[in-house]
This record gives sequence, C-alpha cells and structure tokens, in this order.
Amino acid sequence: MMVRMAEPLPLRRSTARVRATAVRGDSVTQRPDELAAEEPMEIRVQGPGQEAARVAVTMRTPGADFELAVGFLFTEGLIAGRDDLRRVSYCEDLEPEEQHYNVVTVELARPFDPGLLARRSFFASSSCGICGKAALEDVEVHCAPIASGPRVAPDVVRRLPEALRGAQRVFERTGGLHAAGLFAPTGKLLSAREDVGRHNAVDKVVGEALLVRALPLSERVLQVSGRIGFEIVQKAARAGIPVIAAVGAPSSLAVDAGERLGVTLVGFVREDRFNVYTHPERIGT
Amino acid sequence: MMVRMAEPLPLRRSTARVRATAVRGDSVTQRPDELAAEEPMEIRVQGPGQEAARVAVTMRTPGADFELAVGFLFTEGLIAGRDDLRRVSYCEDLEPEEQHYNVVTVELARPFDPGLLARRSFFASSSCGICGKAALEDVEVHCAPIASGPRVAPDVVRRLPEALRGAQRVFERTGGLHAAGLFAPTGKLLSAREDVGRHNAVDKVVGEALLVRALPLSERVLQVSGRIGFEIVQKAARAGIPVIAAVGAPSSLAVDAGERLGVTLVGFVREDRFNVYTHPERIGT
Repeated sequence: MMVRMAEPLPLRRSTARVRATAVRGDSVTQRPDELAAEEPMEIRVQGPGQEAARVAVTMRTPGADFELAVGFLFTEGLIAGRDDLRRVSYCEDLEPEEQHYNVVTVELARPFDPGLLARRSFFASSSCGICGKAALEDVEVHCAPIASGPRVAPDVVRRLPEALRGAQRVFERTGGLHAAGLFAPTGKLLSAREDVGRHNAVDKVVGEALLVRALPLSERVLQVSGRIGFEIVQKAARAGIPVIAAVGAPSSLAVDAGERLGVTLVGFVREDRFNVYTHPERIGT
Repeated sequence: MMVRMAEPLPLRRSTARVRATAVRGDSVTQRPDELAAEEPMEIRVQGPGQEAARVAVTMRTPGADFELAVGFLFTEGLIAGRDDLRRVSYCEDLEPEEQHYNVVTVELARPFDPGLLARRSFFASSSCGICGKAALEDVEVHCAPIASGPRVAPDVVRRLPEALRGAQRVFERTGGLHAAGLFAPTGKLLSAREDVGRHNAVDKVVGEALLVRALPLSERVLQVSGRIGFEIVQKAARAGIPVIAAVGAPSSLAVDAGERLGVTLVGFVREDRFNVYTHPERIGT
C-alpha cells in the first residue's frame, strides 16, 4: 500500500500574501495582508489496467489534498473504504511544476465502474422529476440510519466552537475560512481541517479518518463553521458520524435528512446556549 | 415573449417550521423554530425543436427560481442575454405537485449547442492539467476586463452590510442564509436576494437584471454576505459588475481574478473600516 498520508505541503501554500489598501476612518494606508489560498484541484480515479478518469474539479484551499480526494470519493459513494485504495499521488509529469499539486490521482485496487460517475447526479436522473424527498431516498439507499452513538454533555457542546476556532491555523492568519473538526464525546479535539469550501473541510476530516482506518466515526462529534446544509449531513452520515454541531443554522432539508438518517443536529451553538433539531436523545449529562 | 418575471411563490416556501429543543444554560424547552428552506432545483434548457436537456441541479432556497435559472445560465456562459430567451416555466406535468416547482425549463429562441455543456467543466478539460492560471485564462476569454465603473465613497461602502442585512427577510426569521445585494454607487439598495448557496444568491440578482434588460451592471456595486471566492468574481465579471464588497475575506484566486478582470474587491467591511484588494481607484470621495 503506497498511500502517502502525511501532509506533503508546507502551511504557506494554504495562504497567499497580497498588498491591500486599508481604509480606517479617514486614514488610507497600504499594508501587506494574508489571504486563504484557493486553487482548483482535479480528482482522478484509476482502476488496474484502466485509464485515469476525471471525477471532479473542486475549488479548494491547498493542504490535505490526498485526504480531500479520498474523502470526497468516499462521501460521494464512489469508494467503499480504505481497502479500495492502492495509491494516491500527485500528477508529477505535468508542466509547469506548480500544476503537479492540482491533480490528484487515486489508484484503486479493483476496476472502477464508470456507471458510478453517472450516479453522482443521482437525484437528477429520476424521470419523475426532482424533490427533496427523492434526494433523501437516494441517500438512504447508501446510508443505513445511525442507531447508536455517544451521549454528549451540554457543556461539551457549548465549548466546541471555541475549540475548533483555536485549531484554525489558517483562519487565524487570514480571517476567512471554513473549518470542520472531529471531537471525542468528551470534547477533546481529534482532527481539524480548513478550506474555502465548507464541504471540502468535511471531506478532509473524513478522508483522514478513512486513511487511518478509523471509519465509521460512530463515537465522534463533527463541529462545522457556518451553517449545516443537506450535503453536510449526507457526507457525515456516510461516515457514520452521529452528531453534527454548528455555529449557524441548519437548512430545512438538513433537518429532514438528520431525522431520517439518525443524525443529531445542533445549531446556533454559543457559550450559553444552542438548539437541537433532531435526535436530542444524544445530548445530555 | 412569455418570460414570467414576478416571483410566483409566497415567502413561506422560503422557510420551514420545525420544533427544536432549546438549551439555555440549565433550561431545556421545546419551541417552534423557523429554518431557511433548502430543496434541489433542476435547470433544463430547450431550443426550438430540441429535447429539453438537464444542465444542472443546485441545492437552493425556493424563491426567485426563474431568476436563478436564467442567472445561472448567463453567468456560466450558456446564454448571452435576454434575447436568447423564449419562455421560462416550471415543469407542470410532474407528479406530485410539489415537484412542479423544483424543475425549471428555460426555452431558448435559438438551438442550444450541447458542446457548451461540455465546456462547463472548462478548466478541467485542459490536457496539460489544471491550475488557477488556466481557470483565469478561460474566464478571460468570456469576460473582457471591466475598464470603467463608478466611484464609490468610503462612507457608502461602510454602510453596505447593514443595508443588505436590513433587506434579508428570510435571514431575519431564520438566522442563516447567504445574501447578495445590488446597490447604486450612492448606496441605494436596488435588489437583494437570499439563498442557502452563496453562488445562487448572486445568480438570482444577475438573473433578475437580465430579465429586465439591465445588463451589463456597469454602474452597480455587489455586496455579498460571507466571503468572496473565485466563482463569485467570475459571475460578477460576466455581468459587468465593477465593484464587489463583502463582510468576509476574498480568497487568493478571487484577488487574482479581480485584478485581471478589472473588478474592485473590498473585504472585511465594517462600520469603521474595510480593505481594498484590487483596483482601489474606484473607492474614494
């Protein structure tokens, strides 16, 4: 198995230095500023004896690229787990060199079924049209509802946002980035990843867990910055995560999905308060 | 021309009522809550004598669906303007009735070139790999850099976030939604749209402008909630918008795009301060 798991890029590629014009009241000055980096990344899959096939292009913050690639393939239902992987690599024959790091090829242990790619637009392919119900039903085919899971104390929930923020190295320097953090039920932070895309941050923590064979994440709490949309719940459920918490609000379809997939959704988490939208039985002392 | 421009859905479909468990300190109560609605919407295009072709499925907040559909087609380069449109409609032969509103068909005045769909994954199709530079170059083919544009006073910039927030009807009730607002250089709010997706909110205001033949938006300022990513700049540039402002930070590729496409990018807008990242000549008294 030749999966490289370590982050091969230094932190500085996750940010970029620019000059900005800072307007403060009547004062206008030039000053250096640091921004979150955003670059396209192409994900390719390749089975034994097959040509590499482009699966997706995502705008992402460089860093944890292999985790992002395998996490995306897993949460989208294109691979089943670690045993499907043979090798993950950058495309090192590309010119110029800077492009090496924007194409990730995931070599599989078995042939890849191109029909799965067509299924990625799953709920669009229903001849009877499209609705939230169809989207949910399709997800349920891939994810058995989560039946068990830990019990998380309210005090732990209230501390999650600050703990995640404390781990955001790039946010601290740039002031603008989504994050996803995996916590133990005790509130201990186990992993945190940042990205300009909220879905990418979740795929990165799930991909990391996949690479170290930690799936399913049945005893973990996922804290995300921002809000909880349907696709966040879909991706977390696929990884077996029983509790998702966020500083922001869930959407209506996220709540429907949480209810049916057995995921506890907690929103508007503050130091003194939060709301539980689904499966509140997991929150308590 | 049978383009229906008025919003055909009542506000209540933009939100959904749920029951939440509210934890406040040691108090735990059940209470009703209102969430931003999220549902999939399929966009189809159909030229004269052609079959309708699925172009995209987006998770969106219902409301301004026709504006979203035509705005998306325009900012993605699939239509050139209002004269390309013949009719926009919901798919009223779908069952059950709730699905009517999740499929929008845009009938075109001339045949649709399916090759354009393939181009949508434009920067992925380069045989030499992929990088931010390739993405930028492709966008530049479709968007001449914006050369002129208004001058906006710093006092106007500082008031944009509050003015946009004041127009967010759904946010006010749900506490969680992206927004995009079009402003005159005087700070007067001309249009505001909300969505669970930040790109969708921009497509909605651009689509509205397209339908009333107000493109290009050469004298407008776009204010967005959240951050400024590459695709926001790409969409705004396509609509000819010379100034984008945000409460959050731009990404590195957004700044590269703003620089090359002639768009002024303003970030971290607060009541007393902001930063200008590109083309600062448009900000001043």
